[in-house]
Amino acid sequence: MAQMVAYQIRPGETIEGLKLFEPTLAPLAEREVRIRVAAVSLNFRDLLIARGAYPLPNDRPLIPCSDGAGMVLAVGAKVTRFKPGDRVAGSFFPDWIDGDPTPAKVFGSLGGVRDGVLATEIALPEDALVAVPETLSFVEAATLPCTGATAWNALFVFGALKPGDSVLLLGTGGVSIMALQIAKAAGLRAIVTSSSDEKLERATALGAAATINYRSTPKWETEVLRLTEGAGVDLVVEVGGRDTLARSIASTRFGGSLAIVGGVSGFDGGLSPGAMIFGAKRAGGIFVGSRKMLEDVTRFIALAGVKPAVDQIFPFAEAPAAYRRLASGEHFGKLVIEID
Amino acid sequence: MAQMVAYQIRPGETIEGLKLFEPTLAPLAEREVRIRVAAVSLNFRDLLIARGAYPLPNDRPLIPCSDGAGMVLAVGAKVTRFKPGDRVAGSFFPDWIDGDPTPAKVFGSLGGVRDGVLATEIALPEDALVAVPETLSFVEAATLPCTGATAWNALFVFGALKPGDSVLLLGTGGVSIMALQIAKAAGLRAIVTSSSDEKLERATALGAAATINYRSTPKWETEVLRLTEGAGVDLVVEVGGRDTLARSIASTRFGGSLAIVGGVSGFDGGLSPGAMIFGAKRAGGIFVGSRKMLEDVTRFIALAGVKPAVDQIFPFAEAPAAYRRLASGEHFGKLVIEID
Amino acid sequence: MAQMVAYQIRPGETIEGLKLFEPTLAPLAEREVRIRVAAVSLNFRDLLIARGAYPLPNDRPLIPCSDGAGMVLAVGAKVTRFKPGDRVAGSFFPDWIDGDPTPAKVFGSLGGVRDGVLATEIALPEDALVAVPETLSFVEAATLPCTGATAWNALFVFGALKPGDSVLLLGTGGVSIMALQIAKAAGLRAIVTSSSDEKLERATALGAAATINYRSTPKWETEVLRLTEGAGVDLVVEVGGRDTLARSIASTRFGGSLAIVGGVSGFDGGLSPGAMIFGAKRAGGIFVGSRKMLEDVTRFIALAGVKPAVDQIFPFAEAPAAYRRLASGEHFGKLVIEID
Amino acid sequence: MAQMVAYQIRPGETIEGLKLFEPTLAPLAEREVRIRVAAVSLNFRDLLIARGAYPLPNDRPLIPCSDGAGMVLAVGAKVTRFKPGDRVAGSFFPDWIDGDPTPAKVFGSLGGVRDGVLATEIALPEDALVAVPETLSFVEAATLPCTGATAWNALFVFGALKPGDSVLLLGTGGVSIMALQIAKAAGLRAIVTSSSDEKLERATALGAAATINYRSTPKWETEVLRLTEGAGVDLVVEVGGRDTLARSIASTRFGGSLAIVGGVSGFDGGLSPGAMIFGAKRAGGIFVGSRKMLEDVTRFIALAGVKPAVDQIFPFAEAPAAYRRLASGEHFGKLVIEID
Repeated sequence: MAQMVAYQIRPGETIEGLKLFEPTLAPLAEREVRIRVAAVSLNFRDLLIARGAYPLPNDRPLIPCSDGAGMVLAVGAKVTRFKPGDRVAGSFFPDWIDGDPTPAKVFGSLGGVRDGVLATEIALPEDALVAVPETLSFVEAATLPCTGATAWNALFVFGALKPGDSVLLLGTGGVSIMALQIAKAAGLRAIVTSSSDEKLERATALGAAATINYRSTPKWETEVLRLTEGAGVDLVVEVGGRDTLARSIASTRFGGSLAIVGGVSGFDGGLSPGAMIFGAKRAGGIFVGSRKMLEDVTRFIALAGVKPAVDQIFPFAEAPAAYRRLASGEHFGKLVIEID
Repeated sequence: MAQMVAYQIRPGETIEGLKLFEPTLAPLAEREVRIRVAAVSLNFRDLLIARGAYPLPNDRPLIPCSDGAGMVLAVGAKVTRFKPGDRVAGSFFPDWIDGDPTPAKVFGSLGGVRDGVLATEIALPEDALVAVPETLSFVEAATLPCTGATAWNALFVFGALKPGDSVLLLGTGGVSIMALQIAKAAGLRAIVTSSSDEKLERATALGAAATINYRSTPKWETEVLRLTEGAGVDLVVEVGGRDTLARSIASTRFGGSLAIVGGVSGFDGGLSPGAMIFGAKRAGGIFVGSRKMLEDVTRFIALAGVKPAVDQIFPFAEAPAAYRRLASGEHFGKLVIEID
Repeated sequence: MAQMVAYQIRPGETIEGLKLFEPTLAPLAEREVRIRVAAVSLNFRDLLIARGAYPLPNDRPLIPCSDGAGMVLAVGAKVTRFKPGDRVAGSFFPDWIDGDPTPAKVFGSLGGVRDGVLATEIALPEDALVAVPETLSFVEAATLPCTGATAWNALFVFGALKPGDSVLLLGTGGVSIMALQIAKAAGLRAIVTSSSDEKLERATALGAAATINYRSTPKWETEVLRLTEGAGVDLVVEVGGRDTLARSIASTRFGGSLAIVGGVSGFDGGLSPGAMIFGAKRAGGIFVGSRKMLEDVTRFIALAGVKPAVDQIFPFAEAPAAYRRLASGEHFGKLVIEID
Repeated sequence: MAQMVAYQIRPGETIEGLKLFEPTLAPLAEREVRIRVAAVSLNFRDLLIARGAYPLPNDRPLIPCSDGAGMVLAVGAKVTRFKPGDRVAGSFFPDWIDGDPTPAKVFGSLGGVRDGVLATEIALPEDALVAVPETLSFVEAATLPCTGATAWNALFVFGALKPGDSVLLLGTGGVSIMALQIAKAAGLRAIVTSSSDEKLERATALGAAATINYRSTPKWETEVLRLTEGAGVDLVVEVGGRDTLARSIASTRFGGSLAIVGGVSGFDGGLSPGAMIFGAKRAGGIFVGSRKMLEDVTRFIALAGVKPAVDQIFPFAEAPAAYRRLASGEHFGKLVIEID
């Protein structure tokens, strides 16, 4: 067995801090599974961690990234769910299997509190893994743990959307594009915003029912209302934070919901109580999702034949370049690192 | 039949604008019910309307107040739900019978867009009325339409609380005290805040499990956490608005909820997306409630033998004094105007 | 204006009892809408009524059929939701707008307790109508009121299915085929049974993921389990009644649900408490649906571009032939009567 | 440390088969907890197992009983939730922590597939335990795991009852009396049936709003309807099975629910599809509950000061006598075995 190699970073070092090292392999615990990682995808959170802008209990060096897929190499003595040769992906919160989230369940996220998956090999508890269907490649499966579970949680768990409902997706980052593809396959009506007409064309090609360039239409909430006959959408997947919240609330129909997923422009600022009360609106913080949600979105992606939009694939040795592409904001869909 | 007498006010005139007049009685429509009003209760909204600080489509003079109970005098030709002699109360939104709220259902609120109930006689659509159980007096029944439906919506519809859950109630205004009494009778654990130790003693007497003086404990969220073994409450009934929201979120457990009911200190300001996401918290605007919710809370109040806390009862001629008592903030529980 | 013509039948007369007559037109009530009917679709219930096998409070002669669509001819003085020229369909229960069903809401079904729609002209309360989108023909819209609302209620209200969930559909009657088409468009996995391989091929063409011939596979529940890796489906849309219930329960996954929609083989017989408990299964009676559910399914059908499967279209004069086709059980999808 | 002593029985041996033996103590696994058992309560299931009438995968001899409480003696090396001296109770399904049930979660029930708690000492995984509040005695805590979780699941998880709702409880067995006490404390209206006026008096003393002697009123569903003004109850907790199901459905309001908890008279027979459809009724199998439900009911029992009704307490040496009391059907509330 070749030596395991992994990236390491200390939160706050910026992308420059990403370094390769050769960790010592600990023996597998009874219910652990060793995996040869085949693909890893990046999330905006990985960039925030590199910048030291994500809330973590300390700044110890860590193996970054939460989202990876690969093949089982070996299993601990009491493992029953998987066997060598199985294709698996890791769940963002290894301890959140199903049910409602609790502080204990969401404490140990991969690539944050625990070491992550940007490595040639990893070991994870068997309960932290989901099976990857044959019809999904490792690259595709690696796009799902954070992004897919978050989109699923927003649309179908918190949002409880039904076929025919409408959803507003802000921008063309990972969660928004994943939500677009899922929404289209599930019979929802998706409206997408971007500052780039070229990206909006790609969103249309992926199934967006309507698009809005927020640069040429800065008061985009009025366009959302126009597109919904004055009513507003059933759900907004809110990733913008401080600078977009007020317009997002205004874009939501009476009695509709905001799934608060991110805060690209800042995690402060806020929702006006008046707009919430007189619109009978709901807002909910979406903290990724459980293994069950990851299983659900994986099953659906496979059943519906959705091909997750991948912006670009980088070799393992060029992981920092993938980070930089993410930082540029020029991507459309997911950035993936493939490991031979 | 004696002449009908009613109060009238133009939004923005302040309490001084309350004047008695003698409206002309229109004949009953087919499905209308004429009611001799026996009791009316005030809500903070009535004060906001008098001050011109409540959102209304225009400032035409109106008969104020949404919450009244009385006896049926006569019914239109096609009325089937009630007959003369029945005891009834009006529902805040006459067109919101049940199901989710819609703009059409909540447009015509009593004492706002439509004329209200501060009158010796009123006529309302039969579908806007609920039966008052024998065990409730008119004064008690008149406390329920806005306050009771709002508390019910917050606790059991949006909040979906189960027995044993904990709820934080801010201050001792109408909704908070009604929620306290309901919570106690429903097996919930209520924590109440106030700036007055004397009011907190009264809250304890009504069943509060714990109380916090927010004057002597300005960082009251830390006390809420201490009282809940570090977890926070399952639900906050948020009536404070701008100045309390951040502490209310901090008082809510991971995965818990804020029922946004009012904004005593301002309807702006807001919820931080970061606190929502990393706490997996939910917030929902509570826009009073449906007739079904009023029926539910009325049925429960009667079954449990709850006696709604009434601060003071004023005669019809002294309605402005009741408004002034409300404006003073010195009350505890509801202010009621009784009509002979 | 030409004279209105309608069919009439006395429950129990059988199809032979269907007679044309010329009712007298009553003037429109304030909130009524007069409609020129363009298309009517049949439901199994219409056959049961003709046979006297459907529970009705009396056997007075009635205008049959619940499902019709057409154009607004005139509106009563206080109608606000529609105007002449609008395209509309009637809702099965004119008094069930939204929210949970109640005895009052479901009392007056069309073509049962109230006169139905098998007529050249009808008058209905404006609240009993839904708008027909431009992209749906009258024939298509006429297939939705009973069948579409029932399928929607079963799949998404009671069933609360999420994309990727699996559903078992028994036979190829109206509800089952409508549920199949909706399920496919909503990203569900549908398994369909029939005694006819030819019908199963048509089901596959409409999007069935798998099919079972229950004649050649009498223990079809074992095939359902095989197709779901031993787990069973998330939901069964149960239309068979006495003779299929036990196999339907056995086909349902642990924790899954049965939407009890009909009882082709008998409304008696039943669910075993043991199978329910040790499988943690749920069953729910589906009593068609509300106007809101009809609006939801209509909106979705239009958005997704679903073309409801129509078996055959008959002219108004040949309505009895449509009934006979329904009685033959040879149809696939809906039987529609078109009115010039 | 004294030698551990336990009862053992082979399913089907009847109560006579209960024998004491001295098991060998295995060393604690990493996440196991050793408990000195202080009290054990019996459930009807324990009797069915003794009779060989409960579905089990084999008939190997086992330590019976699922419900016990006691004090922690020692903990495995990686246990974090408990420490020696803590007071704990075991959860019926050690692997069902929270979320929806699955076959894997409910496979290994205590006193059935796994050895149970009728022993002086037991070892359980830490995740299978709940903390016992100081205000509950061990005897009281031992009444909750099966009975309390089942009642909670029926009333508040499946039933989703709200304060003021009505519930019909059949007979005065463990689940029914526990449900009665919880219902009373939670502001529900409980109607109780029994063949014994003396037991009905005791039910009234515990808070029943109304009672029905089903011997003197064999058509008790008509009395339930009378007591609910013709409507029927919101929920029936169905424990009777074959002989009571039809009357239970008839006792349920339109749109109401049946929580299928047991089958004292037989697990076959069934629900009529017709009654389900035309009453828009729901039925759900209640398979005890999760650790979360046990935590919830325990928390509520402690908060509300409910004292679980205990029929009789037996010493450990007389456990068979407790079984015989249960078999007699003469008990009211729970039978508990106390261990010095």
